[in-house]
Amino acid sequence: LVLSHDTIVEGVHYRVDDPPASVGRKLVAVNASDLAAKGAFPEIAMLSLTMRGDGAWEMAFLEGLSDGLEQAGLSLVGGDTTALPDGAPRVLGLTVIGRAGAVTPHRAGGRPGDTLWVVGTLGDAAAGLALLDANARASGPLVEAYRCPMALGAEGRALARHATAMMDVSDGLLLDAGRLAQASKCAAMVDLGALPLSDAFVALHGEGREARLFAATGGDDYALLLASTASEADLRHCLPAGATITPVGRLAEGAGLSLRFRGEPIPLPERLGYEHRSD
Amino acid sequence: LVLSHDTIVEGVHYRVDDPPASVGRKLVAVNASDLAAKGAFPEIAMLSLTMRGDGAWEMAFLEGLSDGLEQAGLSLVGGDTTALPDGAPRVLGLTVIGRAGAVTPHRAGGRPGDTLWVVGTLGDAAAGLALLDANARASGPLVEAYRCPMALGAEGRALARHATAMMDVSDGLLLDAGRLAQASKCAAMVDLGALPLSDAFVALHGEGREARLFAATGGDDYALLLASTASEADLRHCLPAGATITPVGRLAEGAGLSLRFRGEPIPLPERLGYEHRSD
Repeated sequence: LVLSHDTIVEGVHYRVDDPPASVGRKLVAVNASDLAAKGAFPEIAMLSLTMRGDGAWEMAFLEGLSDGLEQAGLSLVGGDTTALPDGAPRVLGLTVIGRAGAVTPHRAGGRPGDTLWVVGTLGDAAAGLALLDANARASGPLVEAYRCPMALGAEGRALARHATAMMDVSDGLLLDAGRLAQASKCAAMVDLGALPLSDAFVALHGEGREARLFAATGGDDYALLLASTASEADLRHCLPAGATITPVGRLAEGAGLSLRFRGEPIPLPERLGYEHRSD
Repeated sequence: LVLSHDTIVEGVHYRVDDPPASVGRKLVAVNASDLAAKGAFPEIAMLSLTMRGDGAWEMAFLEGLSDGLEQAGLSLVGGDTTALPDGAPRVLGLTVIGRAGAVTPHRAGGRPGDTLWVVGTLGDAAAGLALLDANARASGPLVEAYRCPMALGAEGRALARHATAMMDVSDGLLLDAGRLAQASKCAAMVDLGALPLSDAFVALHGEGREARLFAATGGDDYALLLASTASEADLRHCLPAGATITPVGRLAEGAGLSLRFRGEPIPLPERLGYEHRSD
């Protein structure tokens, strides 16, 4: 069995004005993403729901949650509903349980010489949040990426047997790559120029150094980060159609995280990602 | 497997001035009580912890949680920590997983003619909360019962094979007995005069009709309620030393809840228990 519990807090992990159905889908995605990173098959979920006001928000939330659970292949088997004092921020938790596949990768299995790969694109959710912070009525694919991330379940299950280490990128690539390297007792080198960026992201931010630093530290991506010795052809071959996988760096002997751009070492940014959640 | 998730909210399920270690122990107990009611063997737990302020409260909470987990036989295997906005009430969730015993009783298995039994005493926690509401520095066994309920795990596992239906009494006996009867498609008759009361409760409230109605609707007892056809001797024989079990009524053909005292039917109180939590 593979177990995970992630909680999201109103005003911290989602915006107060996010549509409640999107919050329900997001709660599923952040948890399904943890199962994806373990290559696990989703089975069941339990919800911890706080209630405030007349229940209309919660009804819409539950519709989105239900859609998300169906899409993720999770069955809701129980949970708990609690009343909140007036004005208290909602705190929404989900426990998910999956069946382990033939191989369950952890963070700690990376080895010097492994290539670091990212499945999916980086920075879209952070760009979407910045759009919403500037204009609460913003919309489009970046806003969608922030509000309704998709867990890469099929990708994670396909890649598990090729990964020496795997995790989901939820707090920013640099922070999470540093965690993977530390757990694996390795150094990590990330090539900023290699980061996978979406067309929508590039259209808004370009693809220069600042844009790439923004994407590398943004958080909420729910991409997958893996260390692997497999060839690019082998990795691509096992992935479902439409999935993208990109080499972004490598593990080496030693410790710590270093960053390169256009062949030159560059200093790490002060903030590597979002520390508001920890596992 | 038997799964449960219960969440407690600051100011709703515990007092803001409750010692944080007692809140940790309580969070374990309310969840372990759900496993007890299923006759399950505790295995693992996952915590959803909100953080606010300098972390001192949370450190003390975690000490109490750790004590409670050890006492309950649960191993903490993971969870999630989230930051709370300033002033937001803490929301603390625990998921517990147990191994099912040979028999797993549900609420819905009760049959007409079954006797209703309560393991433990009723009203102590509600009396303790009332003491604290009157004087925040109150102490003693009733305050202890409110702050640090004990889950009746050994009792639940011992009784599971004798129970046609079992649940924990967390929201008030009358409310919970009504739920058991409704799930079992039966009527329930409760004899108010039979309720098990502790010496400390009787010393404070006496054992008259009003005191017994208070005990029957108080909530937070974490006693066990079971329906059974077994004899009193058989039930007592299987219980661990020191456990008390008391016949409090019976199930009958029909629907609804009725109450008797000293041989006469009496009207149901307006409030049967606490509705703030639902499963």
